[in-house]
Formats: sequence, structure tokens, C-alpha cells
Amino acid sequence: MIEGMLNLEVCFSPALYCKYENPEAIVAVIDIFRASSAIAAAFSNGVHSVIPVASIEDARMMKEKGYLLAAERNGLVLDFADFGNSPYNFMTEAVRGKTIAYSTTNGTQAIHMAARSHAVVIASFINHSAVLKWLTDQNRDVLLLCAGWKDKFSFEDSVYAGALCRSLLDTGRFQSKCDSVLAACDLWELAAQNISAYKEKFAHRHRLKKMGLDDCVDYCLTFDVNDAVPVFRNGEIRNVNKSG
Amino acid sequence: MIEGMLNLEVCFSPALYCKYENPEAIVAVIDIFRASSAIAAAFSNGVHSVIPVASIEDARMMKEKGYLLAAERNGLVLDFADFGNSPYNFMTEAVRGKTIAYSTTNGTQAIHMAARSHAVVIASFINHSAVLKWLTDQNRDVLLLCAGWKDKFSFEDSVYAGALCRSLLDTGRFQSKCDSVLAACDLWELAAQNISAYKEKFAHRHRLKKMGLDDCVDYCLTFDVNDAVPVFRNGEIRNVNKSG
Repeated sequence: MIEGMLNLEVCFSPALYCKYENPEAIVAVIDIFRASSAIAAAFSNGVHSVIPVASIEDARMMKEKGYLLAAERNGLVLDFADFGNSPYNFMTEAVRGKTIAYSTTNGTQAIHMAARSHAVVIASFINHSAVLKWLTDQNRDVLLLCAGWKDKFSFEDSVYAGALCRSLLDTGRFQSKCDSVLAACDLWELAAQNISAYKEKFAHRHRLKKMGLDDCVDYCLTFDVNDAVPVFRNGEIRNVNKSG
Repeated sequence: MIEGMLNLEVCFSPALYCKYENPEAIVAVIDIFRASSAIAAAFSNGVHSVIPVASIEDARMMKEKGYLLAAERNGLVLDFADFGNSPYNFMTEAVRGKTIAYSTTNGTQAIHMAARSHAVVIASFINHSAVLKWLTDQNRDVLLLCAGWKDKFSFEDSVYAGALCRSLLDTGRFQSKCDSVLAACDLWELAAQNISAYKEKFAHRHRLKKMGLDDCVDYCLTFDVNDAVPVFRNGEIRNVNKSG
């Protein structure tokens, strides 16, 4: 490894996080379908902050406290929640200026898991360039944490991890000898040739389709829809991109 | 999923095994550099059986009991062992007809972990076609378990998992909607274009090189050197391919 270069790693599942954990690093949490895409969408639509909530019990408590609640498990809205996990839910007039409590199958747990690191940012295709610039400006090691599917490897999260790795490596500031980084880059290179055909390989794309929840799939695979930089700090996520 | 088809899954790390575990399936353990390659080599060179030993303490005990002992950690031979982890160690006159106790950084633990499944077979490039035929003949679901590197994702194990998945899917008997299977197949497709260039991406290939232990790397990436089918049963591995 070259002195002075920043280290880049990818962790393909929250269940492997303890093997990659680095308290000095910034962790970028990736949950393409749909938590990280929804959070980025929220901030470009005037949401004040998002409180990620790991358990269903805590989600219910937040609702009772009067928060707007977005909550789903396995793609389906919890019956006591205001709405579910689609980015489109975070684009309405009702959410403007609000703090939203948010609980999902995979993504919100991954955010809490990463909380002991130097900082946690939420990354997705739709806020790619903004997060890339912010990560590069921080001058810190970066660990990408794929939220996965129930702790299993998730194709779309890993493919986006590859896209972000490729961009970070291309800045010339980062280096990696991590097998996961090089494998993710190769998967991204394949996917990038035709992402709208490649997405048919993603199991969760088909789960969403079966439930009629796949209207947002193409949106979640679109680069740079907005320039939100959602950072998790002191229990809540806010947009730190002041120009956003 | 289509009725009557067998299910195929890939687990990229022993630390994820509990998420994929299926007691009805056959588990194929993959540790290309070097345990699964060494075990396949052993049986084509007249070794009677191999006893995988997970801990260093148990390895020392086996040596005291009089077994030939092959044992390494992080690539280096343990000082009380007879030899280490290179397939070439398992090709000498000294091992013919013998039972060898064997303990490695990743592979032997993965074998023990899979022991509660229906059966455990040891798979590698060098005994690919023999294991493929045996797996197809068993008419059971198959789970490929990559031994990984200290529970992290390992590139060479995942690429070989892709090669074996591709072959199993091509029989027309197996199906998969597992993200890991499709990702592994894509990595294999890339690697297969020029495996001797692609191997430079594998971190463990460089670890071995640094220690001067990379003389076996090309051997471990060669298809069908032998037709051993090493199966783990009742605490020991034997070759069940009677023609072998």
C-alpha cells in the first residue's frame, strides 16, 4: 500500500461488518432498493431530518410520539405507519420541513451498525456525485457498507458499491487491495454496459415487481437526480450539503 | 422457481453461512488457495484419508497421537507440523496410503461448519468435472460455501464458485434466484477470458507471492488435473470416486 493514499474497502453484508469495521473510517451505507435512494430523495424535497429506527417496536413508539413514520418490512408498509419505503413517498407536500422516523428491513439497521465509525453517509445512484465529492473532501479512509437482503449478498447494492469505488479510485486519492472492491468494480463495469437490462438479474427487483412496488426501480438506478449528502449524526440524518 | 428443479446457492463467507444453511442440501466447500486444491491433490496421490482439524490445539493433539500433520496459519507452516498447505506437499511418497490431519486458516473450519448438512464435498478447479458429475448425480439442492479469507470475501473462491455454478446451471437440473449465484457467474465469465491475467486481482495470490508460496497458484487454477471427489463424513474426508 502507498503511504499517503486513503484506504477503500467494501463490505457486502451487515453480517460481515465486524470483520471490516474501522472506527477511523467514514462508512457509506448503500441500500439501493430502497432506503438509501429514499433518504436522498427526501432531502431534495425539503425534508428537515430523518431518524432511522431499527426495530418495529421503536418505530411504533416514534409514531406514538407524533412523528411522521415511514416503515416497512419485506417491502410492505407496516399497518401503523404513515407510508412505506418508496422514494416517491418522500416527495410529497406532507413531508416538507418535517422530521420523519424511518424503519426498513435492511437499511436502517445498517446505518445504526455503522454509527461508531468516524461518520456515516447515505449513498445511492441518485446522489452519487454529491456523496463522491463530500467523501473525497473528508480526506479519510472509506468503507462502503452494503445493506444487503436479510444479511445476504445483494446484487444491486454491490453493483452500486462498484460504481462508487470506481469513482473514488479514479480521483487518485484512494487505493485498495480489498478483494470486495475489485470484484464490485468488475460487477459495476458489466452492469454499466446496459443497466436497464442488467437489473433483471437483481432478485429484489423481482420481489418488488411481484408486490407491484417496482415503479421506482429505474429512478433508484439513475445517477445524480439530486445533490443531497445525508449524514447520520447524533441519532438523526441531515443534509450537510448546504448548496443542496 | 420451477417445480422439480434443484436449488443452487452461493455463500461468499463462512460468517454468512447461518443465513444460507440448508440441512437438506449438499455443501461444496471452496478454498482455492489452497486447502480445497490440496485435498483434491492428496487423493490423486494415494492419500487414504484427510482429517480436517479446526483449531491449532487440536492439530497439536493429532500430531502427538502420531498422525502426519499438515498445518498452517496465514500461509506459514506451524512449527510442530510435518508440512504446510501447498498441494505439492500432498504429492510425495511420504503421504501415500496415509491419513493426514490437516488444519488451515480458513478451509478446514468451513468444512466443519458445513458438517450438519446432508453431505460435504471439497471442490476446486483441479477436480472440477468429477465434483460436477457427483453433485449432479446426487439429485439434491447444492450450496457452495466459499472459505474466504478470515471471514472476508475472497475473490478466487468466488470466481471458482461462479465456474461451478455455471456448469451446474448448464446441466439444466439446477435453478437459482440467488444474487450471489448470478454475481459469481458474472465474475467467472470475466475471469475465464484470461485467468492468468485476472489472477493478479486476487489479494491472496499476492500474499502468497510475498511469502514465496505462490509456486502452486497456476496449478490451483487449472481445470481437471484429477478426478477426486473428496467427501467429508464421520470426521474424515475420503475419495468417493471409486474410479479415481
